[in-house]
Amino acid sequence: MNKQEFADIIFGDKPEKRAKWFELFKDPVFVPKWNVTLEQTREDAYQMLKKVTDAKIVSVTDFLHDPTNIFTAHEFLGQVNPSTGTKFTVQFNLFGGTVVGLHTERHKYLFPKIDNLSVIGCFCLTELGYGNNAVKMETTSTYDDSKKEFIVHTPTVLSQKYWITNSVCHANYAIVFGQTIVKDKNEGVNAFLVRIRDEKGQVMPGVKIVEMGQKLGLNGVDNGALYFDKVRIPRENMLNKYADVDESGKFHSDTKNIPSRFFKVTERLVSGRLCIASLAMGGTRSCLYIGIKYAMQRMGVGESGLSDTPIFKYQLQQNAILPLLARSIALNISHNRTKQIFANPQGHEHELLMMCCIDKCLVVWNFDKVITTCRERSGGQGYLACNRFGDYLALAHAGMTAEGDNRVLMIKIAKDMMTNIGSKKSALPAMQFCPKNQIPQFHDITSLETLLDLLKFREIYNFNSLVQQIQHKTKTEKKPQFNVLMFEVSDIIQNLSTSYGERQAMQFCIDKLAQISHVPTKQTFELIFRIYGIDSVLRESGFYLSEGVVSAQAVKNAHGSLIKLIKDLAVITPDIIENMNVPVHALHTPIAGDYVKYNEEPYFGEVVNAKL
Amino acid sequence: MNKQEFADIIFGDKPEKRAKWFELFKDPVFVPKWNVTLEQTREDAYQMLKKVTDAKIVSVTDFLHDPTNIFTAHEFLGQVNPSTGTKFTVQFNLFGGTVVGLHTERHKYLFPKIDNLSVIGCFCLTELGYGNNAVKMETTSTYDDSKKEFIVHTPTVLSQKYWITNSVCHANYAIVFGQTIVKDKNEGVNAFLVRIRDEKGQVMPGVKIVEMGQKLGLNGVDNGALYFDKVRIPRENMLNKYADVDESGKFHSDTKNIPSRFFKVTERLVSGRLCIASLAMGGTRSCLYIGIKYAMQRMGVGESGLSDTPIFKYQLQQNAILPLLARSIALNISHNRTKQIFANPQGHEHELLMMCCIDKCLVVWNFDKVITTCRERSGGQGYLACNRFGDYLALAHAGMTAEGDNRVLMIKIAKDMMTNIGSKKSALPAMQFCPKNQIPQFHDITSLETLLDLLKFREIYNFNSLVQQIQHKTKTEKKPQFNVLMFEVSDIIQNLSTSYGERQAMQFCIDKLAQISHVPTKQTFELIFRIYGIDSVLRESGFYLSEGVVSAQAVKNAHGSLIKLIKDLAVITPDIIENMNVPVHALHTPIAGDYVKYNEEPYFGEVVNAKL
Repeated sequence: MNKQEFADIIFGDKPEKRAKWFELFKDPVFVPKWNVTLEQTREDAYQMLKKVTDAKIVSVTDFLHDPTNIFTAHEFLGQVNPSTGTKFTVQFNLFGGTVVGLHTERHKYLFPKIDNLSVIGCFCLTELGYGNNAVKMETTSTYDDSKKEFIVHTPTVLSQKYWITNSVCHANYAIVFGQTIVKDKNEGVNAFLVRIRDEKGQVMPGVKIVEMGQKLGLNGVDNGALYFDKVRIPRENMLNKYADVDESGKFHSDTKNIPSRFFKVTERLVSGRLCIASLAMGGTRSCLYIGIKYAMQRMGVGESGLSDTPIFKYQLQQNAILPLLARSIALNISHNRTKQIFANPQGHEHELLMMCCIDKCLVVWNFDKVITTCRERSGGQGYLACNRFGDYLALAHAGMTAEGDNRVLMIKIAKDMMTNIGSKKSALPAMQFCPKNQIPQFHDITSLETLLDLLKFREIYNFNSLVQQIQHKTKTEKKPQFNVLMFEVSDIIQNLSTSYGERQAMQFCIDKLAQISHVPTKQTFELIFRIYGIDSVLRESGFYLSEGVVSAQAVKNAHGSLIKLIKDLAVITPDIIENMNVPVHALHTPIAGDYVKYNEEPYFGEVVNAKL
Repeated sequence: MNKQEFADIIFGDKPEKRAKWFELFKDPVFVPKWNVTLEQTREDAYQMLKKVTDAKIVSVTDFLHDPTNIFTAHEFLGQVNPSTGTKFTVQFNLFGGTVVGLHTERHKYLFPKIDNLSVIGCFCLTELGYGNNAVKMETTSTYDDSKKEFIVHTPTVLSQKYWITNSVCHANYAIVFGQTIVKDKNEGVNAFLVRIRDEKGQVMPGVKIVEMGQKLGLNGVDNGALYFDKVRIPRENMLNKYADVDESGKFHSDTKNIPSRFFKVTERLVSGRLCIASLAMGGTRSCLYIGIKYAMQRMGVGESGLSDTPIFKYQLQQNAILPLLARSIALNISHNRTKQIFANPQGHEHELLMMCCIDKCLVVWNFDKVITTCRERSGGQGYLACNRFGDYLALAHAGMTAEGDNRVLMIKIAKDMMTNIGSKKSALPAMQFCPKNQIPQFHDITSLETLLDLLKFREIYNFNSLVQQIQHKTKTEKKPQFNVLMFEVSDIIQNLSTSYGERQAMQFCIDKLAQISHVPTKQTFELIFRIYGIDSVLRESGFYLSEGVVSAQAVKNAHGSLIKLIKDLAVITPDIIENMNVPVHALHTPIAGDYVKYNEEPYFGEVVNAKL
């Protein structure tokens, strides 16, 4: 393969941006410190964030002309320091992105301040009791016409704003979402800019910030719970792009429907899902690099009985890690395409939310599997904090939950599919190879075309089953639709969304293949995508066999092919991992370097002596 | 069901022991502290260990008359504090158990000292370079006949003793394994007692203890790396049950074969696997308790749109957690039986190692899935350190690697199966329902008998495939056996050991069922075991379908049955979790109590305010 071309395809943004990040990460501020206090860890994450913003390689206004740049920043931070990445995503996407998305002229002064961290923000959407039903939040923002002010208030324990990143140490502003009461009428949830600390860093009167303490990881992130005790803010602090209260105290909005308005004011959650996926995608590349690099130097028993064989040679190691490498790269290609569509959604507006949701779900779950497997296959060394798997595992768990619980997003995807197909904005995918949606029982199902058709078959089947079951249960059995969705068809919903995501990823991979002209590079990607496809189909072989679309022989043959293709992939794996754009010099991970040399001197589990 | 009977069956030891542990855990020393220094966390774990030994409810001599008591201690500590559990397992099993297992009269004085912690031990087997090939370790113990002493020595960086629990802070003794050189001849690896700290706690001359620093978890465990610089110990410090150097300087052993002697001196790894499984089984019960208890109080959106429905009602939650609850209970029953066989191995001597290995592998991997799922399904609350999933996740990862990497143990199991069956010490299981090993294509495969036969079928099939492939590749293709095992049949080996373990667990469950006379209790267990069986068979439905042993209709019916049985299980789940012997008062986990009340006051992520 052409290594540069391979690296650029994985990168998914303008290649010239890469060098700036690699250079930035040479700064010693990015050397991780272990066994430091909570305060120190948080300060370190802040200092890293400051280095990033000082480098001026990313701006909140990128959302207006180059959103991909924001995602690229997330990918790099996910590789190098997940806590910093989390603080970054709140500052630049949830807070900054909301300011950009909902601003009018009067808020533009904030953009440069967000970029240079003189304004540090937090995003107060989630409440303790309403993480899963934010539209029903209890926080109020009541308009006082006499003073031209909103009064932001937390009425109950359950309505404390919860998990608020940046709030405990660094933020001076918050975007607070609240039920907007104007002239005694609830106009639904809107976003308000609230100053929470003064210039000296003192918490503003009426604001209470509660330290949330230690978490299972990402302890560089300062999460707090916030209460507002009738905090007054000027009328102009309403982020008023979609709704406003005018000088005469009247509420206006072009979006008449309150739920629609809710989705508009919280729309940063859409890009937020791509941001989380980007953090996870970056972390995935680092994990694979670390796990494979260690396996290539760690000696295990060989034929002679001596410890003379790198464990990466074992089929055990290859069969555990390489299908995950292939799936990770396929999802990476699909993730890159999703970023492009986000940047230019024309023709995809109706499905952008679905695309961002499935990207986060599949990328983050895969990340969790990659970490768990690489940690396990790296044995004890994988357990040391300095070898980083613990950090990434914490990021993966945060990613499953943040910006929408993955499993709940899967429900959202299935609902959107039904809506889009019902309204003919989308259609079910068409099987090209077998246009009648009937796959003959091939004995070789391992070409990309057949694999894609098989993935389509599963999506179509699940879609039809879901629709049929809902109709039967609501019409014939007269059950309420809500109850059917929540109590009766959960597995089909989850399967449908998974099969949509896996099919779409394969489609995006095949599309990308068509753009690659260099034959060896193309062959490398084809090998990777076939492994991804066979692995995805075989995981569901019970389904395909029971539907009679593939033969038992085909399943056995596919197993055999997979084993062979993994061996082919093993041969080029050393080249692949060196060209996944991982800033190795910033990992500071002993087992990715010479782990024996590292262990020559006492090191207290830290990386100061690491020779990488 | 009869709640007491249910609890006693899960407990798997004399029920009267339970109250002593529940009482012990009322001591405030067991209240976890968060955000404390590494030193404090380690001291806390030590203080908990001291409370346990002061309670005199467990003794290292239990190995001689009541080994189950040792495993029970592990189960309780795995529930309450995994770091303490890890320090405990090294003191009582690896160190203490080795002293008991390899002692002669002259070492008996150590027993009471181990019990009361005046001797605190560590277990120096693993070396940096030989974690996966300990028999080739480089540490030497050379006999100096002139002084009647052994000289214990670490010759290289790779031979530093690595991961040594208890060594950094608390241990005063170590059992050191080394190549035993007597009269210039290497007599293989033996175990030696080496004092590593004097009475004042100073490290002994010639011993170097290197701090290993922070890990991804279990930071209450003080892991170090040890070097010995020609440390001299008296001849009598050899643990000489199986091999000895007599006063005239002559080496003796009744076990002539050096590899066999290696397995004898390291035999604590066998009970060690049951100890790790016990820690994990305890942790599993706690996790399920916490995850389910939270889901029962956490409100999500209901039909009205309000947050009025406990999320446990959602099928999403039930289908994610309840099959894991069923599998955990089935593995718990199997684990209990394995402990009994360990205590009285008559007739099972040849398969005891396999049984202990598969118990650890299946229990620990299941533990990892339980934690990951419960954490994910508990959303943000599951991410707070005080809600404990992080602690358990760290224990699961330690468990996958400690006392033998799970995947490597799976290879050991498959090899032992081939040896035992080859030598006719064991036979393949016989399918009872279909004595000709032919299952007709039933449309209902969900009775326990059929499920057991299906599990047997998979085990038999994998065994035969493995033997056939090895024979073909070694005889026809003339490949070396080592290469075939390590490079060509990895998946079949892993599948074979899994299917052995799942079949055996089901067999043990069915055996247990026959002993229960109280009908509702029996029905409860039968429901649980069926879910375990259907879930295990459906995960391999591709295999069963491609072998033509079940029909497509049977697979669909089994899916339908599973969904129904999960709903049945949901109804009795509140009773089940309250009767899994979890010392709830010692979890100090806000989401297992009233999580809203807990959030009324600032709490800094700690549990001091928890009202449980």
